[in-house]
Amino acid sequence: MKKVRVFAPASIANLGCGFDVMGLALDEVGDVLEIIASEGDGLTITNTTQVPLPDDIEQNVITPVVRKFLSLIDKKAQIDVTICRKIYPGSGIGSSAASSAAAAYGMNELFGCPLSDEQVVECAMEGENLASGGYHADNAAPAVLGGIVLIRGYHPLDIIQLPVPGNFYCAVVHPHIVVNTKDARNILPPNVSLHKAVSQWGNVGGLVAGLYSGNIGLVGRSMNDVVAEPYRKQFIPGFDDLRNKLLAAKALAMNISGSGPSVFALTDRHDVAQRAGWIMKEHFDKLGISSEVYVVKVSNKGAKLCGVNI
Amino acid sequence: MKKVRVFAPASIANLGCGFDVMGLALDEVGDVLEIIASEGDGLTITNTTQVPLPDDIEQNVITPVVRKFLSLIDKKAQIDVTICRKIYPGSGIGSSAASSAAAAYGMNELFGCPLSDEQVVECAMEGENLASGGYHADNAAPAVLGGIVLIRGYHPLDIIQLPVPGNFYCAVVHPHIVVNTKDARNILPPNVSLHKAVSQWGNVGGLVAGLYSGNIGLVGRSMNDVVAEPYRKQFIPGFDDLRNKLLAAKALAMNISGSGPSVFALTDRHDVAQRAGWIMKEHFDKLGISSEVYVVKVSNKGAKLCGVNI
Repeated sequence: MKKVRVFAPASIANLGCGFDVMGLALDEVGDVLEIIASEGDGLTITNTTQVPLPDDIEQNVITPVVRKFLSLIDKKAQIDVTICRKIYPGSGIGSSAASSAAAAYGMNELFGCPLSDEQVVECAMEGENLASGGYHADNAAPAVLGGIVLIRGYHPLDIIQLPVPGNFYCAVVHPHIVVNTKDARNILPPNVSLHKAVSQWGNVGGLVAGLYSGNIGLVGRSMNDVVAEPYRKQFIPGFDDLRNKLLAAKALAMNISGSGPSVFALTDRHDVAQRAGWIMKEHFDKLGISSEVYVVKVSNKGAKLCGVNI
Repeated sequence: MKKVRVFAPASIANLGCGFDVMGLALDEVGDVLEIIASEGDGLTITNTTQVPLPDDIEQNVITPVVRKFLSLIDKKAQIDVTICRKIYPGSGIGSSAASSAAAAYGMNELFGCPLSDEQVVECAMEGENLASGGYHADNAAPAVLGGIVLIRGYHPLDIIQLPVPGNFYCAVVHPHIVVNTKDARNILPPNVSLHKAVSQWGNVGGLVAGLYSGNIGLVGRSMNDVVAEPYRKQFIPGFDDLRNKLLAAKALAMNISGSGPSVFALTDRHDVAQRAGWIMKEHFDKLGISSEVYVVKVSNKGAKLCGVNI
């Protein structure tokens, strides 16, 4: 019998312009799993948190991740997973990716790290596919690897870890409203005008350049999503008003986290990040919407062990 | 009376995935102008090259550039321009941008450099507008600034100079076939599928990341245009065949330069660049199409004076 306790972070997909190709890990927020491997052939998942999750393990994102891992290493085992900490699903900060990444990373550690980072992400993407019906890595890759990640392409999976500026803070608010991921995707038109697409990839180039060169101003002015945000912001009460308040408070940018309803603001100043968090909380309080706010420093930690027992 | 002799390079717009937002200067190929400023108010343009250009100065790209410059600095002058060296128009390697950039840069030098780099590019873009009916900077900016350039956005103009890897060579072939810029633009559908757009901005991010990190392999695999090239390659005889030959010869990538008909290949090896040039020449020779081939090291030179007399 072998046991690991593993943490994987929440994450912000899209980062404004980087729709479906970029993501950032929120290392101080995330899921914790305990995974026990023993001889046999089976899987149990026990949820010890207050967060409601499906009873049927076929509906839990951990299940396809564990199966993919075992099929890749061509082994059988009895796997018993305990969910010890869980981000609330539907928050838009990568709840399913955090569980999936923790399961994939934990399994790899339990079995002596036979898989590469890319393969661990590929396992985690099985959970994303169950959750949203698509093999996306823009939450799964930062949840495994930490920091800021670019998914250059999927065939084959090509993950680029981008530099994280020395002082880089993120304030995130999860307002307690429901935005269904599939609705948020279905509201997007299947086509985008070439003109808008050109703006978007100019901004993606600018964002990557800003991160490499440490040009925080360039990072901020590149975080402009002309493709998804104009459609999705209607799901978030007072979106434009909140953004105006955050920009006035010197945040670099405010965008929707993934498909929402969480929104986030980036800054290179800790005091601005704190203030952005208060503004976010107050904004939704005034609208009668309860919320959680996280203010974190962006770092490169990613998934990690938090205790091993054999 | 004051006189400058100024060079501005040919350039490659788009760089594969970076449609309308990226460009690269070919510093060893370009236009040379002599510009004389004296008291008065007028403009003459004399073409001493064998390259046919419009007799009407209202149809010469230099004219709106000179006028824009003088209007920005709010001065009148008699300007006499002599075209001493000229890239053939319609080549797809930024012929109009080279003249426009040389005119803008030369005027700025003549008048004591009152304009910023961005403003010099803005003047050069007036020539681009006359040539193609749009204010594009993806040739004009590298022709002024040299190296590899990202146009993050146009409102306001936001030009990012990207790092040029230490050993970075470009082979370009200009086959003597006519591709009208407006036809090459009109063949593109006004909309692109969200799926393809996502691929394209993943590649733009990868290309910028590859240039900053000096990861030549990443540069190569990012130079994949799924938006314009599938439509435009029909104008270039044997396009797929030529690309296969160049990739087999270890070129990183082959793409259309701007809207064509020139195509280019990038590599970090001088011998591969030389060989790519021979393959390009031979390809069009076999098709009965004459061509010019340039093999140059990519550098950061851009527009420059090549002699001043007062």
